[in-house]
Amino acid sequence: MERTIDREQPHYFGAGPALLPADVLKEAALDLVNYSGDNLGIGEISHRDKRAVKVIDDTKANLSKLLDIPETHEVFFMQGGGTTGFSSIAYNLAANYATKNNGETPKLAYAVTGGWSQKANEEAKRLGFQTQVVVNTKDIKYTDIPPYSEWTPIEKGTAYLYVADNETVHGNEFKDIPTDYLPEGVELVADMSSNILSKKIDVSKYGLIMAGAQKNIGLAGLTIYIIKKSLLEQASDDQLVSWGIALPPIAFHYPTVVKNNSTYNTIPIFTCQILKLVTEKLIKEGGIEEIQKTNEKKAEILYGALEKYPNFYKLAVKEKARSNMNVVFTLHNAELEPEFIKQAEAQQLFGLKGHRSVGGMRASIYNAVTLETTEKLVDFVKQFAENNS
Amino acid sequence: MERTIDREQPHYFGAGPALLPADVLKEAALDLVNYSGDNLGIGEISHRDKRAVKVIDDTKANLSKLLDIPETHEVFFMQGGGTTGFSSIAYNLAANYATKNNGETPKLAYAVTGGWSQKANEEAKRLGFQTQVVVNTKDIKYTDIPPYSEWTPIEKGTAYLYVADNETVHGNEFKDIPTDYLPEGVELVADMSSNILSKKIDVSKYGLIMAGAQKNIGLAGLTIYIIKKSLLEQASDDQLVSWGIALPPIAFHYPTVVKNNSTYNTIPIFTCQILKLVTEKLIKEGGIEEIQKTNEKKAEILYGALEKYPNFYKLAVKEKARSNMNVVFTLHNAELEPEFIKQAEAQQLFGLKGHRSVGGMRASIYNAVTLETTEKLVDFVKQFAENNS
Ligand SMILES: Cc1ncc(COP(=O)(O)O)c(C=O)c1O
Ligand SMILES: Cc1ncc(COP(=O)(O)O)c(C=O)c1O
Repeated sequence: MERTIDREQPHYFGAGPALLPADVLKEAALDLVNYSGDNLGIGEISHRDKRAVKVIDDTKANLSKLLDIPETHEVFFMQGGGTTGFSSIAYNLAANYATKNNGETPKLAYAVTGGWSQKANEEAKRLGFQTQVVVNTKDIKYTDIPPYSEWTPIEKGTAYLYVADNETVHGNEFKDIPTDYLPEGVELVADMSSNILSKKIDVSKYGLIMAGAQKNIGLAGLTIYIIKKSLLEQASDDQLVSWGIALPPIAFHYPTVVKNNSTYNTIPIFTCQILKLVTEKLIKEGGIEEIQKTNEKKAEILYGALEKYPNFYKLAVKEKARSNMNVVFTLHNAELEPEFIKQAEAQQLFGLKGHRSVGGMRASIYNAVTLETTEKLVDFVKQFAENNS
Repeated sequence: MERTIDREQPHYFGAGPALLPADVLKEAALDLVNYSGDNLGIGEISHRDKRAVKVIDDTKANLSKLLDIPETHEVFFMQGGGTTGFSSIAYNLAANYATKNNGETPKLAYAVTGGWSQKANEEAKRLGFQTQVVVNTKDIKYTDIPPYSEWTPIEKGTAYLYVADNETVHGNEFKDIPTDYLPEGVELVADMSSNILSKKIDVSKYGLIMAGAQKNIGLAGLTIYIIKKSLLEQASDDQLVSWGIALPPIAFHYPTVVKNNSTYNTIPIFTCQILKLVTEKLIKEGGIEEIQKTNEKKAEILYGALEKYPNFYKLAVKEKARSNMNVVFTLHNAELEPEFIKQAEAQQLFGLKGHRSVGGMRASIYNAVTLETTEKLVDFVKQFAENNS
């Protein structure tokens, strides 16, 4: 059978790399072979070519528009994913703090609310930084986010508070940001790898937002950073070293990356093109307000269906902390879980197996998962409970 | 006009990101939208999915076959490009040396034969390592690679000798490897970002080969590492720190990456798929012997044409050091250079402008540039000289 670049709409709930809009993929597929009609693909030209720079600039402009990014903040891209973000954030923001505080090495505060924030904290410690864990919900298996009033106060001399805004594996998500809790001068840093562009946020409140592209908005290989410009200031490498601050690899030195408009080293421009197309589409479809409305609706009907059968489905995460992106659930009768997956697949519902570290089921309902697809899952959830209760 | 995934063969000599085979791009374009017939693209599935792991394993197997990689060596992939390679090599091989030598911090030897090896040396120094520059051809504008007998002997206590096997900007390439010159126990490390898979190499002679994919074989965003397995051994992070060895970000810690078959963090699997298709095609077309033959032919006819007009074209790089990949030349009458570019473009020959740091012209004749395309350029080179002499 001759292959084409068309496809039927899949019903896919994988957690990441995850579903992307078919029309974006189709356009990107054409761009890969022939971008601007001169028989060259977008991945085959220099990252310093005008056309490539325009892709970068357009993507930045789209992100600024969608997230209403203020003048005080700067957008840049790096390779390396979220894991490299864990490292680069510690190196760079510690350097910035020391620069502003006569060489004083800062402490770094971490909220450990799931596997990803835990890894971020681990990495900062590994690189030699002193971290303070201000909240840790491991004992309750990351099933809740306690109110800020219950968190340990942040110590003096702290550069930032790090949170994973959405914990992809454990299925919890922050619903508000710390205001009274955060001492003057401590920056809020958020990993939004699995929920960036899923909801309205007030960028001005963040020192830094970091997001790997491969869940909600793109292919693996590109990471978005949105940083408060004042956090880009850094003393010279020699000065930092003399203060005992570890240096990042040059490709992850934020001031260098920003000075070069994200092309200090070769940026994966095809991956950036996909991000450009996704953000363009979101703007066309009404921006963040619209996508947030749909996302809330999707989460509401899916959690609603699961809650309707409390003796059959188990939702471990407390309602107020539930993720709108990753719906994590189990069956009270765990033996039925393979059957759940099997029957779901028979109905063309794929990617529902939970993360190997937690088991059970996980339905990731990212931006590209439509309301119709979610409704199909909702129907199945009800039907399966009815048939097996 | 309706766009399709077909294209006419472009005649494109850009230095990187560079031309890729049209049939590979077309297949990849289809894979992006619908990989295995289930309406999901290869970029939309988990990097731990069986299909993704197979892409990684197949790519590794193809590379092993093409380069005849011995059992003593291991292939792995990381994000970050060549620049991150500069950093990760210093961190990891210094850690390995210290581990094997009771915590002794090694010296690192660099051959500076062009802009890229110079940057690699700079980065190792920046990260706090003591480097020895054993040869530096900056004074002669990187136009020659002196014989090893003229290089400064490598000092005791050195972990590796670093060379840029092909200098993309300055157009020189190593034609042999140091044997007598290299002291017992000093590993040979080569950056082959712009000539990997262009010619036969004896992998067993190298401690480490590093190559960003985006010139000869793929899209930006993936870097190939081929390492001698004995170089993967590293003491614990704490131990290394106590010896004063800087740690790389965890995503660039070779033992961790290898232990996880390049999926410790999310690998850009679509980019890997392109690499798989390119290497598959090279195998089908007869392997390295065939491609090397064609590459030598291409270089021969192009350099030959330029040499035929010694009063018109200037080839600064000495014959024995000339790159088979990046043919760098100028016109004796520099004022004619814009006209050269303009007339070339009128004949559909693109991407010939030299790097901004050296000016003049550069024709990159990577694997995907066909003999026919090179012949077209050769004709133009002759014709332009005849018309303007
Ligand atoms: C919230 C979050 N942070 C970080 C990561 C790590 O991303 P990467 O695999 O790109 O390093 C993930 C990946 O799944 C994630 O979901
Ligand atoms: C030989 C060589 N090494 C390293 C690099 C740096 O690669 P990247 O831009 O991916 O960091 C280049 C890039 O052009 C190169 O040609």
